[in-house]
Amino acid sequence: MMSRVYNFCAGPAALPEPVLAFARDELLSYQGMGLSVMEMSHRSPEFEQIVKEAEASLRRLLSISDDYHVLFMQGGATLQFSLIPMNLLRGKKQADYLVTGTWSEKALEDASRLCRAHCVASNQAARYTNIPDPSTWQLSSPDQSAYLHYCPNETIVGVEFPFVPDVALPLVADMSSTLLSRPIDVSRFGLIYAGAQKNIGPAGLVIVIVRKDWVGDVIPGTPQLLNYQEVAKQHSMINTPPSFSIYLAGLVFRWLEAMGGVSAIAAVNERKAMNLYRTIDESEFYHNPVEKSCRSWMNVPFTLKDEELDVLFLKQADQLGLKNLKGHRLVGGMRASLYNAVPEEGVAALIAFMKAFAQKHG
Amino acid sequence: MMSRVYNFCAGPAALPEPVLAFARDELLSYQGMGLSVMEMSHRSPEFEQIVKEAEASLRRLLSISDDYHVLFMQGGATLQFSLIPMNLLRGKKQADYLVTGTWSEKALEDASRLCRAHCVASNQAARYTNIPDPSTWQLSSPDQSAYLHYCPNETIVGVEFPFVPDVALPLVADMSSTLLSRPIDVSRFGLIYAGAQKNIGPAGLVIVIVRKDWVGDVIPGTPQLLNYQEVAKQHSMINTPPSFSIYLAGLVFRWLEAMGGVSAIAAVNERKAMNLYRTIDESEFYHNPVEKSCRSWMNVPFTLKDEELDVLFLKQADQLGLKNLKGHRLVGGMRASLYNAVPEEGVAALIAFMKAFAQKHG
Repeated sequence: MMSRVYNFCAGPAALPEPVLAFARDELLSYQGMGLSVMEMSHRSPEFEQIVKEAEASLRRLLSISDDYHVLFMQGGATLQFSLIPMNLLRGKKQADYLVTGTWSEKALEDASRLCRAHCVASNQAARYTNIPDPSTWQLSSPDQSAYLHYCPNETIVGVEFPFVPDVALPLVADMSSTLLSRPIDVSRFGLIYAGAQKNIGPAGLVIVIVRKDWVGDVIPGTPQLLNYQEVAKQHSMINTPPSFSIYLAGLVFRWLEAMGGVSAIAAVNERKAMNLYRTIDESEFYHNPVEKSCRSWMNVPFTLKDEELDVLFLKQADQLGLKNLKGHRLVGGMRASLYNAVPEEGVAALIAFMKAFAQKHG
Repeated sequence: MMSRVYNFCAGPAALPEPVLAFARDELLSYQGMGLSVMEMSHRSPEFEQIVKEAEASLRRLLSISDDYHVLFMQGGATLQFSLIPMNLLRGKKQADYLVTGTWSEKALEDASRLCRAHCVASNQAARYTNIPDPSTWQLSSPDQSAYLHYCPNETIVGVEFPFVPDVALPLVADMSSTLLSRPIDVSRFGLIYAGAQKNIGPAGLVIVIVRKDWVGDVIPGTPQLLNYQEVAKQHSMINTPPSFSIYLAGLVFRWLEAMGGVSAIAAVNERKAMNLYRTIDESEFYHNPVEKSCRSWMNVPFTLKDEELDVLFLKQADQLGLKNLKGHRLVGGMRASLYNAVPEEGVAALIAFMKAFAQKHG
């Protein structure tokens, strides 16, 4: 078996190796019970404890108050694009959307099947390489619009809000690629959601953190399973939940707490990202187009001076165990995703390789 | 670590031990690649191959023709209760439902949020212990009603259709607890669906097999992710799928093929069930209330002569490694679920214990 590689995949992404090793060791016998966690009734006391502990750990990590439900759901962030208007319009016909990349654009598009999705601002003209100045946002009033949706970190171009929007509308945030990477003030948000497969756990799980006083008034015909209030009432267990993903997420949360929590990992994440951006900026060989003030800590796209070298770069990186660096087809070049589970040594190895490659081919 | 137990859980249920062992051995390094299958991009050639092989294997196992899509979705069978009318009403306002237990009852209830869900027949008066005689079914005409929905195997009371309904309406079947347990003629159905956590794999995955010429006309406002045609177009990858569950399902399918396929496992399943029912029927101590012609091969509920012995029965069974035998709260007593991954030796051990227990306490 090949030893473990450094995995810079944008998602499903690297998971902490100690978590994987722990899960492996008890895969056939959860806590010595003689059966896998995948084979356990979701109504068993042992599994109920797993869910309870995962939620408690996440609440500690993000200081989530009792004013919020924490829901474990299925369908990924993409299904939330529809569930948010279904659950949060509350009789209104409109919601506001900030468009800062592909994901917030998709969120707007899916919402527009269910309501008037008003685009407050878009930086598409700048190829999503910055955040539109708040003074230019065409916000609706809270009478007209149910909420303002945005995506604090866009994975494709690698643009991240350096601030939380200060607006009158309740905020809804797709934090799929940034949740747990740095501290946030949950109380600033009406709803936060995140697909698991970046900083949380395996794909097939999405986490929703939503103000308790904001749920319950859904569009008629909304299935019970897609109704936040019903999901909350039954503690995310209307039906069988994605139990293995929840179990693994719980292990990741416990690992993160042992690492010192979100503040501690944020310091590491900032170092990883800053070192890589410095390498890019100090070279004449690599380029990142994003405005410095809003560069992502999680996703660092970069291009080579000569795109004909891309294939060679990827091949040599691969041979060194630096995997999944190919950029998204929309922007080309490379992308290094530096989620929590990507160790500093991995980024150091990437930087060393990049410097050597630039020296040889620059 | 305790050695493996015999797990009679109704779901999430026992998985084949060789499959779990295989997954464990490559959990940190899929095929020696140095990363877990959970850490792989769903757009990578390796993962695309996993999905393709899982689908091909399932198609072989059930002889599914090219007239059908095979979809890997999220949300469990319960979300399908809503998706089926969303996708299959095709402009009609009504659908027919046969009610033979809790699951078909829930299916009707969820559909009634979206259409006129017409109850064709119900055996509730008989406490769901038989299948209503087809001569009593109040079927609608195909002009009025879009389909007939039924649940071939109900897990709680343990009642299974010994026939496929012969009706003019297209058939929709919730096969969550019976798919892959015995041969079926897929061509008799318009749509078959099954939550994974019985005979397929870990929870968080649901399989939909649907006639290609039957999809595409959804209720307005249906999210793309919940639209069978859109899911089919993008090969179940509109967004990140529940990748680990699909991977494991693929391993289960491969295991089943190696066991000789569905006919071979059906012979084993029939023996397991018949031996257990014989033990029940031949005793004066145990009782199963279901009409013999429609007893489930997968879920065998039984009561003890004296329900005050239930706790002792469960305790002693547990000590022998015979786990999760407690019956559903709606019917009480015991329930042994005998899915594909429950070995014959497990059923033999259960029978031996039951005989000894009855002799001592009868």
